[in-house]
Amino acid sequence: MSKTPKTAIVPTRDDNFPEWYQQVIKSAGMAENSPVRGCMIIKPYGYAVWENMQRIFDDMIKDMGVENAYFPLLIPLEFISREAEHIDGFAKECAVVTHHRLEDDGKGGLKPAGELEEPYVIRPTSETIIGDSMSRWIQSYRDLPMKLNQWANVMRWEMRTRLFLRTSEFLWQEGHNAFETADEAKADSLKMIEAYRDFAENYLALPVIVGEKTADERFPGANNTLTIEAMMQDGKALQAGTSHDLGQNFAKSCGISFQGRDGDEQLAWTTSWGISTRLIGAMIMVHGDDDGMIMPPKIAPYQVGILPITKGDENDDAVLDYANKLKDALKEVGIRARVDTSEARIPDKMWGMVKKGVPLRVEIGAREVQDNALTHVRRDLGRDSKTTCGFGEFIGQASSLLDQIHETLLTRAKTFRDANIFDVSSLDDVEAHFKVKGAKGFARIDTDKIDDPQYIQLQKRYSLTSRCLPLDDDGKKVLVGKAY
Amino acid sequence: MSKTPKTAIVPTRDDNFPEWYQQVIKSAGMAENSPVRGCMIIKPYGYAVWENMQRIFDDMIKDMGVENAYFPLLIPLEFISREAEHIDGFAKECAVVTHHRLEDDGKGGLKPAGELEEPYVIRPTSETIIGDSMSRWIQSYRDLPMKLNQWANVMRWEMRTRLFLRTSEFLWQEGHNAFETADEAKADSLKMIEAYRDFAENYLALPVIVGEKTADERFPGANNTLTIEAMMQDGKALQAGTSHDLGQNFAKSCGISFQGRDGDEQLAWTTSWGISTRLIGAMIMVHGDDDGMIMPPKIAPYQVGILPITKGDENDDAVLDYANKLKDALKEVGIRARVDTSEARIPDKMWGMVKKGVPLRVEIGAREVQDNALTHVRRDLGRDSKTTCGFGEFIGQASSLLDQIHETLLTRAKTFRDANIFDVSSLDDVEAHFKVKGAKGFARIDTDKIDDPQYIQLQKRYSLTSRCLPLDDDGKKVLVGKAY
Repeated sequence: MSKTPKTAIVPTRDDNFPEWYQQVIKSAGMAENSPVRGCMIIKPYGYAVWENMQRIFDDMIKDMGVENAYFPLLIPLEFISREAEHIDGFAKECAVVTHHRLEDDGKGGLKPAGELEEPYVIRPTSETIIGDSMSRWIQSYRDLPMKLNQWANVMRWEMRTRLFLRTSEFLWQEGHNAFETADEAKADSLKMIEAYRDFAENYLALPVIVGEKTADERFPGANNTLTIEAMMQDGKALQAGTSHDLGQNFAKSCGISFQGRDGDEQLAWTTSWGISTRLIGAMIMVHGDDDGMIMPPKIAPYQVGILPITKGDENDDAVLDYANKLKDALKEVGIRARVDTSEARIPDKMWGMVKKGVPLRVEIGAREVQDNALTHVRRDLGRDSKTTCGFGEFIGQASSLLDQIHETLLTRAKTFRDANIFDVSSLDDVEAHFKVKGAKGFARIDTDKIDDPQYIQLQKRYSLTSRCLPLDDDGKKVLVGKAY
Repeated sequence: MSKTPKTAIVPTRDDNFPEWYQQVIKSAGMAENSPVRGCMIIKPYGYAVWENMQRIFDDMIKDMGVENAYFPLLIPLEFISREAEHIDGFAKECAVVTHHRLEDDGKGGLKPAGELEEPYVIRPTSETIIGDSMSRWIQSYRDLPMKLNQWANVMRWEMRTRLFLRTSEFLWQEGHNAFETADEAKADSLKMIEAYRDFAENYLALPVIVGEKTADERFPGANNTLTIEAMMQDGKALQAGTSHDLGQNFAKSCGISFQGRDGDEQLAWTTSWGISTRLIGAMIMVHGDDDGMIMPPKIAPYQVGILPITKGDENDDAVLDYANKLKDALKEVGIRARVDTSEARIPDKMWGMVKKGVPLRVEIGAREVQDNALTHVRRDLGRDSKTTCGFGEFIGQASSLLDQIHETLLTRAKTFRDANIFDVSSLDDVEAHFKVKGAKGFARIDTDKIDDPQYIQLQKRYSLTSRCLPLDDDGKKVLVGKAY
């Protein structure tokens, strides 16, 4: 038998995918659990990813005429009650504020005091409070369309949590648009899911399938929910962003009405759309390997990691100067680079960059300085891609190398996904696939099959859900799989 | 008697400053009160100011080696109890989460359910929860300095609220740094207050006095609190940012210790520093006039407002094209411009720009198009500054015009402030000044006077506080005034 290869992450993906995921996050220093139940701490390296995502997507939506605003963290209980329809959804499990003061408890500690007449809920989402503002801000068709977004923290009291994927508190953007007509709202919900697809594929290298949710998987109160679904390396689905056509449902409960062109009072048509820090989890599970994270170059906190190979001799200063010169030259051409000047051992620095998934690693020793050269390694291809080239040559091609890494990650993930989507013609075939231990991927079947009672049984037995009706299949097919 | 001049804002600053403030915010569309007690809604035009402030200051601190991260919204009650010393400060009035579920109340509404074993507090500030992380992340002197910042929402249950100035929820950045030595922490707290001064003066055109807080005005738990104090047009002070040297106090209560260079375990020295959406209120009260807001150009949501004077005739298309051409040409030179294409009447559009405080207004009619010219007006100087010039000439000088507006605002505010600081030699003179109805400004007296019992009486009688011991006076003088 061949010797098991040594990997930087233990266990490997094959051995234990969920534990591999936790170890990748830990070894890259992206996030960790906090002393607050179900809430995570996003560490600087993980938060930098979110910041890059925010800047890119924020620019995209501003180009579409969306304006950012900020609405209160707390929602009056009455607003939630009004949305009775939504309560069957996630809103039941949420953090409730009942007091507004702390008092000495007489035992050296503190206790809640100042009970509120009406409790507040920490926003699980903001349709109701933003809808309340819209009902005041929208008076005439001239006020439409209104497109608002907020970058905010939200809370849902989750019982089983996992870093980035499901936490009680998470960060997201929630967009809330209002329109004059049903057609505009429908077109907008398509436009926003298309923006998410663009963002996921072209910036996160995350191939996604755009589709409609089935009725049972829709956002409560939505006429239609569009989703982008990604496939993780364990074959499970992850819903990576959603866009809801809310029809006039929220307009009705929030009283968003306006005087139309004909002078009549009418209800607005609204949409809402969101992506969250969950996307970071998706990127880890799509791109990571047994040596750790692989950052898609466009959102990588630093795109080039520079490793000065100092040996404690007279060449060290020259090596460090050269490394900094490289960093500055890369900055000039718009590339984020970082020199590791920590006191760690050289192999530890090298593995640190690998585990953090820095797209390009550059090694510089006394020899490179002498030759005005450098050695670079692509994280996506590993040590086989090790290349030595001139300083100027590298500066000239670094941007193109990063693009190639992006393309490689996207293609690799797409190839894996497409190889794990199975066309099946009967529910028996679905069962035949998923009953095999370790079965993964999505089954694609005719949409009418989901009304068959056998489908419900299969879902329960194998923890399957209808992921979406891909738009590319005109609603005739549904993808079925396990999901995060 | 001369006729009272008509102003866009009623009442004027002289008539009723607090009400003028509310009306400026309302007419500029910057923020409004929400259905949630004490919480504001930051509207798009106000939020855009905050976004610009964030981008600028975030770049500044990143250049100083600060890394952003994100810590939980909720703080375990136990963490707050541990900080007994701090409880005498603001932390007593805060939102307390006691339940994690909503249940049907049997009367068609909802009620809190799922009582928590230990309640949580919505963060009023995050020293304790960040300190807890630091205690795990810092092990050796090699881990220092550690400089963390988060952009976050915080809550303090305020009884008397005012938009931007004092609200139960507000947005801020809170920086938390840890060092090896007392000297480094002291130097850092100075460096950060200096960064705030730089930011306030060079970006917000807000002249500030940098000084030390007196012991009674310090952040609870701080060895020293540095502040930037600004003077509003009603002569009151506003604390616009603070930087605290926390000594080893927080390190002790949070257990932030490390192995020093000599191998011994020792406590870290920490600082914290913050600015908030309150700065927006300061800008309004420093720069606004009786016609509304005046935006400092560097953080103005749009720096140039373009007003196409369309008359419903055959020239309209050419006027609009020309306006858009101007906008694009300004964008090319890095200037944010916006064309008002709304259906409002021309005078309403003009006054809209005035009330929003757009630094430069450009008017374009058929004649301007014909002459390849335009007419511009500076918001800070008003109609007297109306100038007609060529298109190319304007593009060439727009950036310099914006710089001049910044300088004018800064100088104007500085002149006003300096004219309202009074050097007095006795507490009787302080009284003589403030007992006059409508008395405003700061009195500057010798620092040793604040230990006189008469000083306590004066503070109570005239609602005065010690604003700071200006660094420029080497701690020998103290500024005394009313404050927000």
